[in-house]
Amino acid sequence: MQKYFISKEDLLANKIKGSDAYQIATVLRFRGGETIMVSDLEKNYLAKVKNITKDEVSFEILEEKAGDMELPVFVSIYQGYPKSDKMEEIIKHATELGASKIVPTFMKRSVVKLEEKKIDSKLERFKKIAKEAAEQSFRSKIPTIDEISYLKNIDFSSYDVKILCYEENAKNGELTNFKNIVSNLKQGQNVCVLIGPEGGIDDSELDYLLNKGFIPCALGKRILRTETAVFYVLSSISYEMELKK
Amino acid sequence: MQKYFISKEDLLANKIKGSDAYQIATVLRFRGGETIMVSDLEKNYLAKVKNITKDEVSFEILEEKAGDMELPVFVSIYQGYPKSDKMEEIIKHATELGASKIVPTFMKRSVVKLEEKKIDSKLERFKKIAKEAAEQSFRSKIPTIDEISYLKNIDFSSYDVKILCYEENAKNGELTNFKNIVSNLKQGQNVCVLIGPEGGIDDSELDYLLNKGFIPCALGKRILRTETAVFYVLSSISYEMELKK
Repeated sequence: MQKYFISKEDLLANKIKGSDAYQIATVLRFRGGETIMVSDLEKNYLAKVKNITKDEVSFEILEEKAGDMELPVFVSIYQGYPKSDKMEEIIKHATELGASKIVPTFMKRSVVKLEEKKIDSKLERFKKIAKEAAEQSFRSKIPTIDEISYLKNIDFSSYDVKILCYEENAKNGELTNFKNIVSNLKQGQNVCVLIGPEGGIDDSELDYLLNKGFIPCALGKRILRTETAVFYVLSSISYEMELKK
Repeated sequence: MQKYFISKEDLLANKIKGSDAYQIATVLRFRGGETIMVSDLEKNYLAKVKNITKDEVSFEILEEKAGDMELPVFVSIYQGYPKSDKMEEIIKHATELGASKIVPTFMKRSVVKLEEKKIDSKLERFKKIAKEAAEQSFRSKIPTIDEISYLKNIDFSSYDVKILCYEENAKNGELTNFKNIVSNLKQGQNVCVLIGPEGGIDDSELDYLLNKGFIPCALGKRILRTETAVFYVLSSISYEMELKK
């Protein structure tokens, strides 16, 4: 079953428009009668598809679906800007795993050079990926994708907890910091997670972040790639806080 | 720092050969004096690079490194064969996260058609990815990549615990099965994890797997893509068993 985030106006009018309508008509080739989920980011409804054109799809609401699909804490991911299309992979999977905010963050060892004129279109693409991943994973919210930022320009002061994913801790056999933090999280807290790019975190960045109150953490015994670290962090928070024995 | 798995003979001769030597000489452009890790899959050594050619790199062992980097349970991943190059992505990240064995598994909703003559080269490529990911993540072992298999031909009888990742459980709000299993794992147990392809698990496959003793599990509240499920499972097992408060 597909989920679609639509505007309040479209929800009241029982219409899906734009690229979602186009997808339903031409990619999914719905014919009417299919069941979908629609959401205005506040409530979720089970709906039945009625008339379909490439520009507009009408539906009938069947019932409101309860259920908060969000993690019990707000997790903001500051991801050191990685190579090739890894940022897109990270946004996709971090959205599925429940991130509240993702901030592509230029750090000293980020090797990608972004042309100024391409930054806006890049950000639009990141937001589109987050919206689609939120729909696919049945989330209640779409994560915020902040502007691509430089580490030193970011204000970390509003966070309750600051996790620094740091591979040197894994190499040194540190195994307690991450679980100490995650097992003590309280519902509604604002958690900030910083992950370096492929080359890791520069010594001067490390000092800067420790001064800002970040706790360096190993994520298990092995050395994870930059794109794997975020999966580990979000999965563990879900396992600790959402699942029950 | 790079890690290289080499044969016992090469370890005794203090030589790295083949594609690893080529990588050191031409991609990494080492000049001698660099520190690396070498392993014969039994022991790990810190070593200093000496002479370098494209065919052979000699080294001097500095010290033996202790440390078991492996998960305390043996996790075998039966991955419903996914689309495009996702199998490679899964092998790469599952290796980093500590999987012991990965079995590409054809299921009813696998849509990829593999040509018979390409299966061997595919398997070789999967094994190469696992070796490189094991080296990169400083693992002590390279996971086994089994032959591409059909679900009905697999013998699951030797496993202590059988986890079925099942998205319908997440839709129905089930939140206890996975944590019940993982929090009761004992060191050295053999754990089997089955994940469907993109289209999910067919009803007849579900019946078959339940009969084989698989426990259907939700992985948090959201619906995960096939490639994200394996990251969640392995990260949670590491969080539960390797990390300490």
